[in-house]
Parts: sequence; structure tokens; C-alpha cells
Amino acid sequence: MDLPLYRRVADRLAEAIRAGTYRHGDRLPSVRGLARDWDVAVNTVIEAYRSLELDGVVASRPQAGFFVTAGNAVDEPAPSQPPGEPTAVTTGELALRVLTDGRKPGILPLGAALPDPDKLPLAELSRTMRRLLTEDEAGVHGYAMPPGDAGFRSAVAKHWLATGCKLRPDEVVATSGGLEALGLALRATCAPGAVVAVESPTYYGVLQVLDGLGLRALEVPCSAATGMDLGALRFLLGEHAVAAVLVIPNFTNPAGGRMPEEAKRELALLCAERKIPLIEDDIYGDLAHDGSRPGICKTHAPDDVLLCSSFSKTIAPGIRLGFCAGGRWSQQVLRLKASTSIAAPTLAQRAVAHLLASGAFDRHTRRVRPLYGRSTQAMAQAVASAFPVGTRVSRPTGGYVLWIEMPAAVDAVRLYELALRAGIGIAPGPLFSPRGRYANCIRLTAASWDPPRQEAVATLGKLATKLARQAS
Amino acid sequence: MDLPLYRRVADRLAEAIRAGTYRHGDRLPSVRGLARDWDVAVNTVIEAYRSLELDGVVASRPQAGFFVTAGNAVDEPAPSQPPGEPTAVTTGELALRVLTDGRKPGILPLGAALPDPDKLPLAELSRTMRRLLTEDEAGVHGYAMPPGDAGFRSAVAKHWLATGCKLRPDEVVATSGGLEALGLALRATCAPGAVVAVESPTYYGVLQVLDGLGLRALEVPCSAATGMDLGALRFLLGEHAVAAVLVIPNFTNPAGGRMPEEAKRELALLCAERKIPLIEDDIYGDLAHDGSRPGICKTHAPDDVLLCSSFSKTIAPGIRLGFCAGGRWSQQVLRLKASTSIAAPTLAQRAVAHLLASGAFDRHTRRVRPLYGRSTQAMAQAVASAFPVGTRVSRPTGGYVLWIEMPAAVDAVRLYELALRAGIGIAPGPLFSPRGRYANCIRLTAASWDPPRQEAVATLGKLATKLARQAS
Repeated sequence: MDLPLYRRVADRLAEAIRAGTYRHGDRLPSVRGLARDWDVAVNTVIEAYRSLELDGVVASRPQAGFFVTAGNAVDEPAPSQPPGEPTAVTTGELALRVLTDGRKPGILPLGAALPDPDKLPLAELSRTMRRLLTEDEAGVHGYAMPPGDAGFRSAVAKHWLATGCKLRPDEVVATSGGLEALGLALRATCAPGAVVAVESPTYYGVLQVLDGLGLRALEVPCSAATGMDLGALRFLLGEHAVAAVLVIPNFTNPAGGRMPEEAKRELALLCAERKIPLIEDDIYGDLAHDGSRPGICKTHAPDDVLLCSSFSKTIAPGIRLGFCAGGRWSQQVLRLKASTSIAAPTLAQRAVAHLLASGAFDRHTRRVRPLYGRSTQAMAQAVASAFPVGTRVSRPTGGYVLWIEMPAAVDAVRLYELALRAGIGIAPGPLFSPRGRYANCIRLTAASWDPPRQEAVATLGKLATKLARQAS
Repeated sequence: MDLPLYRRVADRLAEAIRAGTYRHGDRLPSVRGLARDWDVAVNTVIEAYRSLELDGVVASRPQAGFFVTAGNAVDEPAPSQPPGEPTAVTTGELALRVLTDGRKPGILPLGAALPDPDKLPLAELSRTMRRLLTEDEAGVHGYAMPPGDAGFRSAVAKHWLATGCKLRPDEVVATSGGLEALGLALRATCAPGAVVAVESPTYYGVLQVLDGLGLRALEVPCSAATGMDLGALRFLLGEHAVAAVLVIPNFTNPAGGRMPEEAKRELALLCAERKIPLIEDDIYGDLAHDGSRPGICKTHAPDDVLLCSSFSKTIAPGIRLGFCAGGRWSQQVLRLKASTSIAAPTLAQRAVAHLLASGAFDRHTRRVRPLYGRSTQAMAQAVASAFPVGTRVSRPTGGYVLWIEMPAAVDAVRLYELALRAGIGIAPGPLFSPRGRYANCIRLTAASWDPPRQEAVATLGKLATKLARQAS
């Protein structure tokens, strides 16, 4: 699927800013001037600027045009450079502690990547569930045996058409959430002890699954902007017997990067050629801030990619509903699902099918995507002003988490302890690496932005500055 | 916990019938006579006879007293005698086929152990869910992080008090159904490749879990009346390194046996002494036909037993809700739950907590237990009359499945194929053994009894008789 023109214009502008052609505070070319120079429509340029504004890269001033924002005064985190050897995965108590601490009363939960409840279509979901409970009581309380409810599976296949990928409804297996989908995909493709290539840093849920299944991790270098470094992956695949590659190509968690469409294609073909299963998590794909729908790897090798996703970020986490479209592993995924938890919840499948098919889901994501863009951008700017000199912040163009690299001397776990005493939950960097790397990084959830969060970021900045000074 | 007196009187009578003191058609002692002879109250004898009537062991004739029923003209299946060596578990396509075939339109589903929807408290469940969706929308759609909703876990602990066992609410981990609970219990206690002692025959879901986790099975001889043979188990534990024992002590699936209370104690202590984790599935414990609540093994060694159960048989299968009370493995179970599917569905936890705490669950099970007793007894009698000479039928005193041992020449998989063509789904015996034993056995679901089922059993009987004749 080609990117819309305005997005390509925006990308070219962002590239020029990144390259230093335009710096913090610089005025950018006028809309008309740029339309003429680059031979595109005025409206396309306006859309491109709006999209960059949502990304926090530019800001408009009335009567004066567009300027490079302060957000860009701060660099993105540096590309990661993990060691090129696989490692056993042992997630300690830290992950559970972070999850538990972050939910204690009186703690502002910036640690867990929870969506903002006000940005979920809960009223529509509840209404639909109440109706289904009345209209088809026996149906919604009976089993929806694997692969799952037919209406749900076909609604999922139709919805993911927007990525350019045609899922076969018969490869879609409903799961009890997205993490179960990833676990089933890994079990379908990897024997215990096998090596799985993952992004570095990567979602700690992925590390917990690897730990639980006795799989080893091979950390692949990543850019905070464009995700997995395919050159590095290609090299590592030559060095090690890798059983599967697991990637979050759209707005990866925690670094926020979006893999360019061409890279998705390259990754899919690279894995397919080498007969290495590619497990793709598209959980944030519906939350691009500019409203576009990024593509997925599976489009380029439908049989060789296991696509996993869930509705925990876009509809509700409590319903526990996701899916895996397992390509040529779909029968194994189906059998493993049956032997793991029999079936996914029926009422949730029927309700989500309705939200997808009725257009309610699309209306909802159209509304919330720019809101997430604004809250993410606002928090990034606040971090840039409050945190010690040398701090770097990711610039995600989708989802709602920020990855923050503080000066090397700042210990993130120490910051975690201090923040907790100040009533703030954060996710310390070592959670996101099987080797406990990223000791000076944290992830913050920017799903909403309000005075308490503003104050919390200011407090975190003061604490981090103190830790930086103590160390020097 | 002691058995109620009437139950002990009933057991003594059943024993006398089994021993041949009273045979098919014999008139049993009068209520008053027996009360005098055994020195118990008249009401106790009446209760004992009623309980035996529900079990299908005796029938009353107006003005004439109680008689040994035709059901007893047929023996129970013989004790099983599996080989004493562990075996790898590979569940083939048969299990999935049986599940899928049984749900095709036009098939009378006697194969899957589904509850009768008319015997589930669906109206109450739906009403509760609708209310919760209105009253606490944000709550029911958010995560109920492991160990799970506090109200649910405390309601579970209180409910299981009726077994005589005090669960600590903090050991109860909510799961996405009962099978997930068993899988988590096995993963918490067994390394891949380890040997798990299981009943023979055993629930095919258990075999699917063992297969999925790469665990080996050691089949333990069982009696259709009293479950696992503890003498045999003791011997086998001496011969092999067994990582865990998995048992369904109350109304085991498929054979229907109920382990005597003293045997539960012996099993719990045997495992505790040898430091072998005992995994106990109590999914049918609330469905004793006579209304009593049988005890569980965990009472006798609370820290050493992992109790698993779910509400799929008593409330609704579609909600996907169970739990594991993991004793000293509860932290491992919690961590594995978090890394497998994060959390169990929130709305279901809240709704089930309400049904348990409000008394609605108890009112409901009081109502349906004798109904299951009647349908099970009626189907057992129909099988006894319709199936070929030499057929044996289990006499479960709880739950709603029948285990039928046909003459050795009758091939159950062949019967399965023929039955399917006649529009009837059954579960062939080889499903219930990792070695594909029980080739001449089938399991039938007796959750309800009506003319179509009556006709189906007659048809099955004719087909089985034909197969028996062809073979001879």
C-alpha cells in the first residue's frame, strides 16, 4: 500500500528538520511556496504541516506560519547497540512490582501502557453488550469454539484490509487478549530453548512470555524512529540459528518507532526467504496520530507471517480479546488455543464484531488518534523542558508511550523508587531488556495530559536532575 | 468433613446391592424396618433411598416400596489396567474433530461435556452483567490484574468453604477458564518432559494440555466408582520420577467416579509426604446429584495441593472464567498467568462474584443437581436396555457424563463415524487415553433427557449391536 502523498511530503520535511536544514525555532517554508517548489497541491502541504504538528515536530503561529518546535530541541534516543549473542530470559520481580505498584491508590499511573478510559468507546461497548445479553442470551453465554465466532473473525479480516493485507477469515483465531496470541504464535513456531530475535528495547510482556516458555532472546539493534535495524538483523540471522523474529512494526513499545513501509516489505521477504517465521504485533496500528493506517509486514508474505493484535488499546482491556492470524501455522495456533484456554470470551467477540462492522470502531479511532497525538507531544515537550540536560525523548507518530533516555549517570530504578514515594508510577528501562540494559531510560505513558501529569513530569524532571547531579 | 448420615446409609445399601445381597428387581427392606435394624431415624432412611433413587440404583413403586432398578442389571465398567510406564502424549486430530463435528447443525451433541443451557442461571447472569455495565462501566472494562478481582477471589474462597477447605483469598488466581488453570498449575510444577500421573481414562482436555506443554503421562488404574487406585499410584510413584499428580476426585470425567473422603485424605498426604504437587480439578464438585457437597483433597494438605476449577459447568462456558488456588506455588501461578494472558475477563469476575455472594449460585445448583441426577440415570437405563449384551455403564453420583464400556469387539471410532451419519455426536474412548486405549468405550453427555435423546440412544444401541455382530 502506498503512503498518502501528504504523508510523503511530511516525511520529507521531517527528514530535512532531522538533518538540521531547519533547526529549533526556524520558520518553515510557506504553504504556497512549498506547494510550488515541490509541485504538489496547497491542500497537500497544509495536511502535511498538520500531520507534523500532531507529531510535535512543528507548531503554527497565527499569521506567521509554521516553526520547528522546542520538542525538536531534544534529540531522539540513540540507536540501541545490544550485544550480538542470544541470552536466557529471566524476568524478575520488577515487572510484577511495576504493574502492582502502578495500580495502588494515590499513584499516578504513568508506568503501565494503559489507554485513557476517556478515549475508549466504553459507552458504545456497554450498550452493545447489554443488547446482546438481551437478544441472544444463550448464544453469548455458550462457547465460541476455536477458531472463534465467525462474525468476529470476518470483521477482523475486513478491518485489517485497511493495512493492505487480506487476512483469510479461516486463519484468524480468537484469543484471550493480545499476549495470549503472541504466546500461541511463539509456541506454534519455537521449541523450548529456541532463540527469538526481538527489538531492543522491547515490550516487557514479550520478555515475560519468552521467560514463561523457556525461550532465549536475541536483541536486535533498533532506531527510536524506524524500529528494527534490518542490516543488523540480517547479520545476526547469519550468525545464529533463530527460530522466529518478533517485531512491533507500528509504534513499537517502548521506543515508539514506526518501521517504514519499504522496511516492512524487506523484513517480511528476508524472513520468508530464510523460512524463519515472522511474528508481527500490530496492537498500536490503529493509533497513528495523523489518521493514516500504516501497513503491516504480513501483506508482503501472507503465509509466512503470524499477525497478532488485540482490542485492549482501542476498545477495552478488561474484555480480554485478541487474535492471531497464523498464516501457514494457523492450524497449530488453533490447536494450541484449544489446549490452552479452550475458547475466547463469547460476549466480547460478538460485541467487538458489532463495533467493527457498524463503523463505530472507525468513528472512535478517528476521534481519538489526534488526541493521543496531542497528549504525547505535550508530554514530550514537558519532558524536554524538565529533565536534565542531555536527556533524549522519542517522537512517536502513533500510540501513546514515550521512551526517555536520561544522562548515563541517572539510574532509572532509583528514579522509580523516588517517583513512587512522590506518588508517581513509571516504567524503568531495564524492564525492556532481557539483560537489564537501559539502566538510564524510562518509559512514560502519555495517554492523556492534564495538570496532575504536568506536575508529575516536572517532579520527575527534578528527581532525575538531582540523581544526575549526585552522580557527577 | 464427615459425610451426612443419610449418605452413609445410602453407601451401605449401595454396597450391599453391589455385593449381590440384593439383585435386579429385588424389593429392598422397608423404611421402618431398616430404620429399626440400623438404628437410624426414619427420615434418614427416606433420604438415603431418595439419594439412591437419584443415583439410579433403586426405584420406588407406589404402595410397594423400593426395588433394585434395571440400571443395576448392568455392571459398571471394569477397573482400568493401563501399562505402568510413562508415555509421550500426542493428541491427534480426533479431539478437534469431535469438538467440531459435535457442533455442526443437525448433530445431536452427546459428545462434548457441555452443560444443559436450560440448567444454567443465564437469566440471572445476564441481569447481573447488564447492571454492572450500567453501574460501573469503567470498572468492568478495565484490567483486573492478577491475582484478579478481590471480590471474585474472596467469593470463591467463601464458596469452597462448603468442602471443608479454607482457601486463602491471596492464593486464588483468576484464570481464563478451568483449562488455563490446569495448564498454569502444570507449568508451575513441571519442567518440559516431566511425568504427570493422571487417571485412566482421563479428560481429553488434560491430555491436550500435556501435549501442548510437552509433558509425559503416567496412566494410573482407576475404578469407575471410586476413581484413582491409590495402591497402584503408590506403587507407580515408587517406580517412576513423577513431577505431579493430576486428579478429578469428584465425578471424574469421563468415568464418573467419586473418590471416597478417606481416599482424598490418603492421596493428599501421600503426595505431601513425597513432596509431589497434587493438582486437583474440582469442576464437577458442585453437581452431586443428592445435593451434598463432597470434600476435596486440598483440605488435607492446603499448601501442597493446587486446586483448579471453573464456572463453565455451573454458570456459563462462554464467560471463560476459572481459578487456581496454588498453595505454595501460588506466586508462580500468578506470574505465569500474567505472562500467558495478563488477566481474566473483568465483567465475568464481577458477575460471578455477585452470583456466589448473593446466594443465587447456591439456589441454582440446589435446583439443578437432582435434575442432572435424573437425566443421567434415565440415559444410563436407556443404554442398559439398548446396547449389546455385555455392555457396562458407569453410575455417576454427580456431574452428567456416562462412561460406557461395550463388548471388546465394538470399535468406538467406527461407532463414532456411523453415529455421526445418523446425526448423533459421541466421544469415542481413545480420546481419553494417551495410548488410544478404551477402543470399545464411549462417553455420552447426559445433561438432559428428552425424546430425541431417547431415540438417539436407541439408535446408538442398534449401531453398536450391529458392530458387535459383524465382529463375531
